[in-house]
Amino acid sequence: LETGSKVVRAGIVVTGTEVITGRISDANGPWVSEQLAGLGVEVAHIIVVADRPDDLEDALRFLAAEGMDLIVTSGGLGPTADDLTAEIVGRFAGRPLQLDVEMEEKIAAILRRFAARRNFKIDEAAMMDANRKQAMVPEGAEALDPVGTAPGLVVPAGESVVIVLPGPPRELQPMWPVALATDAVKAVLGRATPLHGLTMRMFGVPESEIAKSLREIEEDDGIDVEAVEVTTCLRRGEIEIDVRWRDETEAVAMAVRDGLQRRHERETFSLDGSTIDEQVAGLLREKGLKLGLAESCSGGILAARLTNPPGASKYFKGSVVAYSYEAKEDLLGVPEELLEEFGAVSPECAEAMAKGALKAFGADLAVSITGIAGPDSDDSEKPVGYVCFNAMLADGTSIARDPVIPGDRHDIRERSGLVAMHLLRNLLGGDGTPPTS
Amino acid sequence: LETGSKVVRAGIVVTGTEVITGRISDANGPWVSEQLAGLGVEVAHIIVVADRPDDLEDALRFLAAEGMDLIVTSGGLGPTADDLTAEIVGRFAGRPLQLDVEMEEKIAAILRRFAARRNFKIDEAAMMDANRKQAMVPEGAEALDPVGTAPGLVVPAGESVVIVLPGPPRELQPMWPVALATDAVKAVLGRATPLHGLTMRMFGVPESEIAKSLREIEEDDGIDVEAVEVTTCLRRGEIEIDVRWRDETEAVAMAVRDGLQRRHERETFSLDGSTIDEQVAGLLREKGLKLGLAESCSGGILAARLTNPPGASKYFKGSVVAYSYEAKEDLLGVPEELLEEFGAVSPECAEAMAKGALKAFGADLAVSITGIAGPDSDDSEKPVGYVCFNAMLADGTSIARDPVIPGDRHDIRERSGLVAMHLLRNLLGGDGTPPTS
Repeated sequence: LETGSKVVRAGIVVTGTEVITGRISDANGPWVSEQLAGLGVEVAHIIVVADRPDDLEDALRFLAAEGMDLIVTSGGLGPTADDLTAEIVGRFAGRPLQLDVEMEEKIAAILRRFAARRNFKIDEAAMMDANRKQAMVPEGAEALDPVGTAPGLVVPAGESVVIVLPGPPRELQPMWPVALATDAVKAVLGRATPLHGLTMRMFGVPESEIAKSLREIEEDDGIDVEAVEVTTCLRRGEIEIDVRWRDETEAVAMAVRDGLQRRHERETFSLDGSTIDEQVAGLLREKGLKLGLAESCSGGILAARLTNPPGASKYFKGSVVAYSYEAKEDLLGVPEELLEEFGAVSPECAEAMAKGALKAFGADLAVSITGIAGPDSDDSEKPVGYVCFNAMLADGTSIARDPVIPGDRHDIRERSGLVAMHLLRNLLGGDGTPPTS
Repeated sequence: LETGSKVVRAGIVVTGTEVITGRISDANGPWVSEQLAGLGVEVAHIIVVADRPDDLEDALRFLAAEGMDLIVTSGGLGPTADDLTAEIVGRFAGRPLQLDVEMEEKIAAILRRFAARRNFKIDEAAMMDANRKQAMVPEGAEALDPVGTAPGLVVPAGESVVIVLPGPPRELQPMWPVALATDAVKAVLGRATPLHGLTMRMFGVPESEIAKSLREIEEDDGIDVEAVEVTTCLRRGEIEIDVRWRDETEAVAMAVRDGLQRRHERETFSLDGSTIDEQVAGLLREKGLKLGLAESCSGGILAARLTNPPGASKYFKGSVVAYSYEAKEDLLGVPEELLEEFGAVSPECAEAMAKGALKAFGADLAVSITGIAGPDSDDSEKPVGYVCFNAMLADGTSIARDPVIPGDRHDIRERSGLVAMHLLRNLLGGDGTPPTS
């Protein structure tokens, strides 16, 4: 990625024994990293440390020695004895802790409100005692007002600036813009050149094809692809392509985007970062259509996915999850003879299920999924992963597919939901022919 | 945690720009960390680095300077130019790369099989050329046979031993036991005292109560709780308590377990680490009962959860996800008058939905969920988060609950599924009275 000026670099330290043991998965490191990338800051390291003071201090010293302009920590700001981040960052920065009386009163006020709402009796002296710790601020540091009860900190430390944030994402994220607005952080960010970015999404193309197309764009189209940053990643069955650039290389970024789109027109469903879920919901709203589902092997996964966004009841009528022959007959009206002749996993059954869902829900369109999620198949002629789909409008127009989906039970179930989303998008008039797997 | 001998410590380095930017969430760090903990090795740091050679080398030097006995890396072993882990680890260890001819032939054989299965033409010379890189092994290191196409490495490096593993979890995990079986790694692990562990799970008790109980166990029961390692964590709405101990403190661990169980008898549902999902599936199988669902605000989440384990069709008949009045009437037989009088979110509607699911699926038991997941409520008298449950046996025996669940739409939907699982467990004869939220 070309840049005129010196690169501004950052390291992130995530504290917490629960994170290092894998009991909690860390959301803060990636979140902060993404924010920094957008600001043009290069993240060199994310370090997870257990709640051991020495390990945290060593991590800070390592990042300082690496010449990081910015260090961001998360966690370890609570009231208990093993919450030591403020003290250790103070020591690392050579700034002894001192009581911030104003902050002490702010925290006390928060706790009093909390207690009053819940009708707790509060022992004022004990409370002030227990929470004085959270009001201790390294000398010369700036304290950031608590979102929960823990204040954040911005601590100048030699050539670096340390941003100290609480662990819970719902406290860390709202505190982030406040930290960015401090003079110390502004001075660091002022040295960075902001990055622009766009995200494209494709379905049904292998990752290796994108690498090949990028080489063609470089060699055949004569575009200096290296001047921008392109990352490709397979994310829940779809290809996500991120292009980042600085002002001076905007034309290259656009040429990369257009070159990729031209080479994968059929598979590109998003140029603006919108997800398939957002697109299907948007199309259903826009057209005022009501959707019903008939699910077998996906077991409710598609319904759960479609009802995830707020306001789904505007267009989603429901799903019959029919995990037995009887349910397919009784609730979806699949004829017994059809099941006997073709089996429950057949294009014929998928078609009858879609018709049944249209009728059961009085829907304008329906999609059905019936397949063998495994680990075993009852039917010697049909392999694990064989899944039949039918997406149908009330007038009988339909798109049918019956791919063999690779992977284990989990993969097959998830991908079934994804294929159905793409069939729905196509039935609703989205561009391109839907690939399947 | 008390121990007689020196603590064996490890650091983990996860490479990958996609991980540092948060586009992929790292599964390897936590997984390796958990394996090491079980072997009695203390993990001090997990470091995520982007695909920049210098940053990786710096991270290795930092961990060596920290005195790590073991360093585990994941990723960067592919055939492309930016896969540099083997080279950098070699440089770090002062061991130049040399071609392992035997390994080169093994990789070629894998690629030939791969190509043959897919009917690819293969250019032998080009292939050998491209893949020679993966057969380069640091002098004196041990190469581990590939699971995919990338071999792993065990590289002695001064006082440390570095285990180099591929990035994809499905390659890393099978290679792990092979790495452990090498002489170099065995020598390190031989210095560690293995830890034993148990996991308890509770539902419906705040995390702060567990901290209080642990203090009581220490002060009132006179148990030296500090002699074992107890970690408590809120995981998807349930409390998970992990107790780890070495041989000599087994009695303390048992006293902690018993003390916690005695104090939270009603809320403890698992002493053996089994999850609520495993318990419900086990009870249904054991009793030979068939389950049907009626879901509204959970939108299929409960069905998706119950159909996740292989073999679910043995006891799961299906779910009616009824997201509209009509679907509740037509598919579940909820009387129109009932909906008009009490509304769709009411204990009365939940009861009628459970009855309807019993009938629709010819089930032995059913559970219904109807509530307001938000973000808004249509009903001024019922708040967002108000959810009604009914778990019913075919003979009409039932458990009903109608809590107000805190949090946002996502939390309310997920927790609705969880509450329903606990109601099912109780209806099936699990111990204790089911708490709700």
